[in-house]
Amino acid sequence: MTELPSADFSAVLQRCGIELPALRGTDLSVRSPIDGAELARLAALPAAAMPAVIDAATRAFKQWRLVPAPVRGELVRLWGEELRRAKADIGQVISREVGKIVQEGLGEVQEAVDICEFALGLSRQLHGKTIVSERPGHRIMEQYHPLGPVAVITAFNFPGAVFAWNAALALVCGNPVIFKPSEKAPLSGLATFKALERAIAQFTARFGEHAPEGLAQIVLGGSDVAEALVDSPQIALVSATGSTRMGRAVGPKVASRFGKRILELGGNNAMLVTPAADLDLAVRAIVFSAVGTAGQRCTSLRRLIVHRDVKQALLDKLLKAYASLRIGDPLQPATLVGPLIDEAAFKALQDSIAQAEQQGGKLLCGGQRVLADQFPQGFYVAPAIMDMPAQTAIVKHETFGPLLYVLSYEELEQAIACNNDVPQGLSSCIFSNDLREVESFLSAAGSDCGMANVNIGPSGAEIGGAFGGEKETGGDRESGSDAWKQYMRRTTNTINYSRELPLAQGIQFG
Amino acid sequence: MTELPSADFSAVLQRCGIELPALRGTDLSVRSPIDGAELARLAALPAAAMPAVIDAATRAFKQWRLVPAPVRGELVRLWGEELRRAKADIGQVISREVGKIVQEGLGEVQEAVDICEFALGLSRQLHGKTIVSERPGHRIMEQYHPLGPVAVITAFNFPGAVFAWNAALALVCGNPVIFKPSEKAPLSGLATFKALERAIAQFTARFGEHAPEGLAQIVLGGSDVAEALVDSPQIALVSATGSTRMGRAVGPKVASRFGKRILELGGNNAMLVTPAADLDLAVRAIVFSAVGTAGQRCTSLRRLIVHRDVKQALLDKLLKAYASLRIGDPLQPATLVGPLIDEAAFKALQDSIAQAEQQGGKLLCGGQRVLADQFPQGFYVAPAIMDMPAQTAIVKHETFGPLLYVLSYEELEQAIACNNDVPQGLSSCIFSNDLREVESFLSAAGSDCGMANVNIGPSGAEIGGAFGGEKETGGDRESGSDAWKQYMRRTTNTINYSRELPLAQGIQFG
Amino acid sequence: MTELPSADFSAVLQRCGIELPALRGTDLSVRSPIDGAELARLAALPAAAMPAVIDAATRAFKQWRLVPAPVRGELVRLWGEELRRAKADIGQVISREVGKIVQEGLGEVQEAVDICEFALGLSRQLHGKTIVSERPGHRIMEQYHPLGPVAVITAFNFPGAVFAWNAALALVCGNPVIFKPSEKAPLSGLATFKALERAIAQFTARFGEHAPEGLAQIVLGGSDVAEALVDSPQIALVSATGSTRMGRAVGPKVASRFGKRILELGGNNAMLVTPAADLDLAVRAIVFSAVGTAGQRCTSLRRLIVHRDVKQALLDKLLKAYASLRIGDPLQPATLVGPLIDEAAFKALQDSIAQAEQQGGKLLCGGQRVLADQFPQGFYVAPAIMDMPAQTAIVKHETFGPLLYVLSYEELEQAIACNNDVPQGLSSCIFSNDLREVESFLSAAGSDCGMANVNIGPSGAEIGGAFGGEKETGGDRESGSDAWKQYMRRTTNTINYSRELPLAQGIQFG
Amino acid sequence: MTELPSADFSAVLQRCGIELPALRGTDLSVRSPIDGAELARLAALPAAAMPAVIDAATRAFKQWRLVPAPVRGELVRLWGEELRRAKADIGQVISREVGKIVQEGLGEVQEAVDICEFALGLSRQLHGKTIVSERPGHRIMEQYHPLGPVAVITAFNFPGAVFAWNAALALVCGNPVIFKPSEKAPLSGLATFKALERAIAQFTARFGEHAPEGLAQIVLGGSDVAEALVDSPQIALVSATGSTRMGRAVGPKVASRFGKRILELGGNNAMLVTPAADLDLAVRAIVFSAVGTAGQRCTSLRRLIVHRDVKQALLDKLLKAYASLRIGDPLQPATLVGPLIDEAAFKALQDSIAQAEQQGGKLLCGGQRVLADQFPQGFYVAPAIMDMPAQTAIVKHETFGPLLYVLSYEELEQAIACNNDVPQGLSSCIFSNDLREVESFLSAAGSDCGMANVNIGPSGAEIGGAFGGEKETGGDRESGSDAWKQYMRRTTNTINYSRELPLAQGIQFG
Repeated sequence: MTELPSADFSAVLQRCGIELPALRGTDLSVRSPIDGAELARLAALPAAAMPAVIDAATRAFKQWRLVPAPVRGELVRLWGEELRRAKADIGQVISREVGKIVQEGLGEVQEAVDICEFALGLSRQLHGKTIVSERPGHRIMEQYHPLGPVAVITAFNFPGAVFAWNAALALVCGNPVIFKPSEKAPLSGLATFKALERAIAQFTARFGEHAPEGLAQIVLGGSDVAEALVDSPQIALVSATGSTRMGRAVGPKVASRFGKRILELGGNNAMLVTPAADLDLAVRAIVFSAVGTAGQRCTSLRRLIVHRDVKQALLDKLLKAYASLRIGDPLQPATLVGPLIDEAAFKALQDSIAQAEQQGGKLLCGGQRVLADQFPQGFYVAPAIMDMPAQTAIVKHETFGPLLYVLSYEELEQAIACNNDVPQGLSSCIFSNDLREVESFLSAAGSDCGMANVNIGPSGAEIGGAFGGEKETGGDRESGSDAWKQYMRRTTNTINYSRELPLAQGIQFG
Repeated sequence: MTELPSADFSAVLQRCGIELPALRGTDLSVRSPIDGAELARLAALPAAAMPAVIDAATRAFKQWRLVPAPVRGELVRLWGEELRRAKADIGQVISREVGKIVQEGLGEVQEAVDICEFALGLSRQLHGKTIVSERPGHRIMEQYHPLGPVAVITAFNFPGAVFAWNAALALVCGNPVIFKPSEKAPLSGLATFKALERAIAQFTARFGEHAPEGLAQIVLGGSDVAEALVDSPQIALVSATGSTRMGRAVGPKVASRFGKRILELGGNNAMLVTPAADLDLAVRAIVFSAVGTAGQRCTSLRRLIVHRDVKQALLDKLLKAYASLRIGDPLQPATLVGPLIDEAAFKALQDSIAQAEQQGGKLLCGGQRVLADQFPQGFYVAPAIMDMPAQTAIVKHETFGPLLYVLSYEELEQAIACNNDVPQGLSSCIFSNDLREVESFLSAAGSDCGMANVNIGPSGAEIGGAFGGEKETGGDRESGSDAWKQYMRRTTNTINYSRELPLAQGIQFG
Repeated sequence: MTELPSADFSAVLQRCGIELPALRGTDLSVRSPIDGAELARLAALPAAAMPAVIDAATRAFKQWRLVPAPVRGELVRLWGEELRRAKADIGQVISREVGKIVQEGLGEVQEAVDICEFALGLSRQLHGKTIVSERPGHRIMEQYHPLGPVAVITAFNFPGAVFAWNAALALVCGNPVIFKPSEKAPLSGLATFKALERAIAQFTARFGEHAPEGLAQIVLGGSDVAEALVDSPQIALVSATGSTRMGRAVGPKVASRFGKRILELGGNNAMLVTPAADLDLAVRAIVFSAVGTAGQRCTSLRRLIVHRDVKQALLDKLLKAYASLRIGDPLQPATLVGPLIDEAAFKALQDSIAQAEQQGGKLLCGGQRVLADQFPQGFYVAPAIMDMPAQTAIVKHETFGPLLYVLSYEELEQAIACNNDVPQGLSSCIFSNDLREVESFLSAAGSDCGMANVNIGPSGAEIGGAFGGEKETGGDRESGSDAWKQYMRRTTNTINYSRELPLAQGIQFG
Repeated sequence: MTELPSADFSAVLQRCGIELPALRGTDLSVRSPIDGAELARLAALPAAAMPAVIDAATRAFKQWRLVPAPVRGELVRLWGEELRRAKADIGQVISREVGKIVQEGLGEVQEAVDICEFALGLSRQLHGKTIVSERPGHRIMEQYHPLGPVAVITAFNFPGAVFAWNAALALVCGNPVIFKPSEKAPLSGLATFKALERAIAQFTARFGEHAPEGLAQIVLGGSDVAEALVDSPQIALVSATGSTRMGRAVGPKVASRFGKRILELGGNNAMLVTPAADLDLAVRAIVFSAVGTAGQRCTSLRRLIVHRDVKQALLDKLLKAYASLRIGDPLQPATLVGPLIDEAAFKALQDSIAQAEQQGGKLLCGGQRVLADQFPQGFYVAPAIMDMPAQTAIVKHETFGPLLYVLSYEELEQAIACNNDVPQGLSSCIFSNDLREVESFLSAAGSDCGMANVNIGPSGAEIGGAFGGEKETGGDRESGSDAWKQYMRRTTNTINYSRELPLAQGIQFG
């Protein structure tokens, strides 16, 4: 086992602004999935400390909401600059801590940069509507106002970007943020957060009192800390990324206190490949979206629904591509598949494979652990492809790993029905060069997912569109388009500037 | 007691398309609050019948979602025409059944007409966005697609308009509707619904198969019927209007099954009157919004927050106005205040008055039952004004009746804080001709309600703006602006029409 | 020659509200292209009368702009109802006066109905934006306000719908309209206008003073009348439909007085047919868009750009379809091709055919006059198809008649370049089921036209989208989407409600 | 006379990237209005060279339009960074070359930075709409595509910001730019442009071929150079800032070739001061907007329309404020009023004062030249206030200098009529704390200007709103809101993905 942490990683963390000694504790043992080495032992915040944290955010809200949005935009601009500057380092922390390959670690930081720029642009918009009134001497408008403290509870698989998605919008919209990173990825969260802290410091230096204490806070800890956020009536919006199970608990809790929530839960994302598909393009997309991040993206491809006429040809190409995948240390540039996050993930994968076989599936490749000699504490698996006779129970279940089910279809309607016949509704795609097929897939009778792509895989969304899914995925949206509206409260204002008091709907009274 | 129903009311119902014999049963005794006379005895649908109802809606959805939106718009246009034609009759049913004065009954039908026209306009919009992509040969768009069956559960106080608000949008958006009217106001619901049925008949005559069976259904019944809708995973959206207590039950239930909901719950609406107010205008607005619908609007004025310098002058005018209010049979054109919905409402009002007095309040006028001789089974009260020393517990509670609390303030910030210091967040207003006061009230640091008006009362919204409130009011919106989006599902589509497969965020893979 | 007009047509006109005796004069001889029969002789307004007309509109503007937009919406709703009621009659007037087949005459009235409903929906929108400010205690909003009198100058080929497109939006936006119909189609204009007059009468009956004198005026006359509108500084917006030559004169005139204009000028619309096209679908679309309205739509198909591999197959089908086209009296239900508007149009067509032959073209069918025996004063031609070796000068010229040039291509880029290599930029389309081809055609490097369709012809737009074209087509838009903004003036409002006076861009002054 | 240029200014220019030797010529003598010193002698581009410039832009367009918008956004981000870095230097060049005080020079650079950030945000938006279709199996969308080369012709008074406003949007929208700065301010233009060139160099280093030759060009020269741009059919959009006289020439020229244009022409901006105004706030706003940039902003305050009851009080305060204005070298931090741009401006001012006196005006202060001893070649004037008995001819004329006319009114309607009764329609404002007055001023019956502010002066707009004016100001908009749409072409796409060919408006054909 390596030292804790290695000298060079220590330097990386320091450049990221993470001072381990100050954070050291006994609660959280952070291990790299690469080799199981302990990267840090951190203190967790006790739940009892949460009221003070939440109070600080509540106080900060009173000030921050009054800071003009374009000035708030300057803060996210500075954050974006800091992230840009620290991109290589933060990317490396992510790779070490969650096992993503270098390119994906960097991509995640880039996504954080992108959303900062997007939020900067929003900072002079946040548009409501002016509306004509039915009454003389009246006008209507709607304004969007800051909402209140926002809690961002994230999962290990996007330990930096998802926080940035939420925080950049929340901050521009006038809200303080409290960030609860995954227990499995606190360092990545810290690295992203520290860049924000540096931005706040610069901002404060320029604008003085504008950035209040408590504007951005990070809380390391377990589910009790998360629950404190979920349950607090002071937290206006809970944005939580994780499992459907988690969402099924969080949603009702927040609803019962009339809070707002953004839930980004499970996905069980399919790709349709039709006879009109460019199979080589499809293969490249399948590989990236099924094995990227070792199949641990919420948008990872899990189901391949292929027309029976092209199934064999596609599988031939796919198996060949899988056979050449370089699995190993994600910090090595040539690696395409890194380790699973931990042993539990490995076992869950094994379990799903076993169930699938019981349900008639035939394992075409992969599934086995590899590199166990080299990394006895790292859980690397050869990405698996499983041919299924039908969409059985296990196929409808989200298994977080590089396990791809293959199903076949005859008529496009069947394929769409198959795409939709799972509880989750995050992402989906079709590979086809046939306009009618493509448009049918995108139509009201097509994919029921929040994202439906054409000739690209289900994962790897740009930040310009709204991200999120339907059904058990949660139904909410974050990132681009008008997702920012969820971070604000809308107020409808009718202004009478006449000397009369006409009533709406022509009512005469008195 | 009058006969069941009177001959002339029978004729009204018939003109509304309500065939009582077919509906007759023993479950629901519908009584007019005017005199307690039983208007009808109706059969309730057993909960066991709900799965078939819901299945019919689910089947209808499969067809209706494919009908082009502008064609769906034609249906709501026809509905609007039917409502316009039946306006006087439906208005009268409403007045008889829930005790609104004639003008308000008519206004409610007008509101239904208005939303049909608004929905007609939407039927050629339902705009998503086209979005530029960061990748060559790619484009992004978002489309809004039909959502699924919508349940509309309404309260007695807007027995027609709230259904129309929801159904007109739902139908144009491609969704079937199931309408569960209040047990206290099934006839008003039926009258509004029958107009839709006639529109569907005309529509079907013209377009044939376009309007499927099960597109619009009404279910008369109790809370078991409502629960069947709330709990069914086939109901995509539950739109429920009622008490905060109801919403606190419904919200988590719907959340636990990942459904969507629109909650329109309690309001505790305040008016600020500043020294810069036009007091005569304010008095007129107070009277309409505090005693209109006998104080039983969700947007009724309940709290008057007056600057101490003008408090006495305002009260003088107000008491004079209250003294001249004509209370009585709401069907008489001169009447301004009709009866409470039932005895329970009367008792709750008495109870609130008693509590308020215990908490230091001084009853300035009203509160007592009147016309008991004439209408022994009708509960008419003289609208009450209660001077309060502070915003005590009872003031923070919504009492559904003509009870107005008066509070005073010195600094505008206090008044705004007082406005906000209640659990509800529906509507609010300021009377002032002072720009700074007004804009402060509308600003991020101002009213925290979903609606904040200037120089008009908190009630009587136009349908062009979004209607709804924050906090315990539920947080959702219906009616105008972009409220229609809640009745649809959004899909983000990224289309690759190139021969390459570039990844977002510049990631290089393989 | 028939009497003037026939008894039954007299009845039609009367039902349309047109009292010929009151309009009779010697200036305008209105002839039916069906048989050259004179339908009416009408008095033209002398240019000297125009100042009074324009003054009336100017006065009306002062009042109409203050009528709330939803109330203005009620006027267009009533207009829509009147049009719906008179649909058959107005349709017949159009068919008689400009020679459209019955279905197209009715379609034009339907389009007028549609835009009234669309405008009705807008009447509660007309949304500007609320915008966040960079300064504390400030907010920004933009409002759209009525613009002023709008002149609508239309062409013979859409004698009713184009007026409705403009007038419905103009009226809802708060502007009076002055309608100058084509000298060739005053009766169709009058029929459409009279429906508006009836709506105004009903509106006035309900709202009293709301609909001012001068709100809607029609002026029959020649180019001097049109020029009076173009040149008047009181006419805020000139919306003119016609030839590029006309637009080249009108545009600079309006610009020189800083007026606004909407120009809808010539089109030279192409269809690309690729090897991936459904040829049968293409043939149907070609026939409708090339011969519908006898090729006299601004969106008529004039150029067919076919891949050489499918050219012969397409031509075979097309020639067969052309051979079966029923040419004749447009009032007969079975007729698909009616007459040209007049002899000049016929001569221009002959001239174009001759030039095309000189430039290497080969006439594949049609072009000759038919039915001359039956209708010696009616100019019916067999729709022509001309095979061209290249896009020569005459092909780049818009000939208003059923003359279709056929060109071939090898690479899609060539076809797109060919589509774009004409001075006009109105409409275009591609027939292909190949996604890449289709999206390329719609992309930034694709068609440069204002409208680019897929698998439908270039003509027959729905009113939900913006209608209009680039380059010599004028560059403006009318009808759907946000075209209404051109009928309003935008005002950007920055409101300071603080007690400070901070400057934008952080400037310190004094 | 100082040397050409002074050593320190040479250094400033060099830091701005301006290599004078390479630009040196005999055509343009650039003089500082501070002291008349010649700053540079530059070569002008002969008109004969313009076709090559325009061809280069045309070629660049073919490439640049295909670069994804978010990548184009990266270029404006880099430009913003370069401007931020060079802010002090560019600000100084502006101050020296056009005589603005330091704060205003810096503010102009800040405005350029702001628009770069705004454009960056747009680079992931550029939203068109998706629209529902009336036909089954059809959908509609509109896309905004790059337009073509954009010419930006600017005036001396905003020699940097106006170029940035236009270029940042044009570039993000996919268009090359050709910048023709004022002959009086080429160095400021160059300084701003050079920052863009540096950004392009960095961009090219990162993205290779993405930034084509000819993407951004600057042309120094006279009116022949400008005319070459105005007349070229290759220039898709001419954005010209300057006098109404210029616009009256440019508008028709561009219209005659069916080009697009943005005209920002003369303003004659008024402030209403009502009895409900905060007079001290008004005085501060008047001083900044009437004397800032020595009254040479297009948004400078030129007309003060004061209620007669507060006129004297306001004038007392105003004269006192004017008396303390520090006039002098704009590079000195304490200076508030710098020189006029040149002697011609001084003479025009004198001439206006003389005419105003002939028309009954009474000069209350200022108007005379000052500091002539110190700066014999600099034209400094004491800001003038002229009391006018009525809005005479000279008052309706825009005089570019610190000359403020004072008018009085009794009724608000008069004041609004007075505000509107000039040919120009750029900016306007009201000082009042009275809601009714304020809203009336902002209403459809209020100010007819493109900008109408409340409690801030007419000048100093933020970039978030649309900037521009009505009537002789040109009618166009640039900068914020949706002004970007003018830099793009809109295409309406109807896509049929069914196997049928239904026609719009329900037409049956064949």
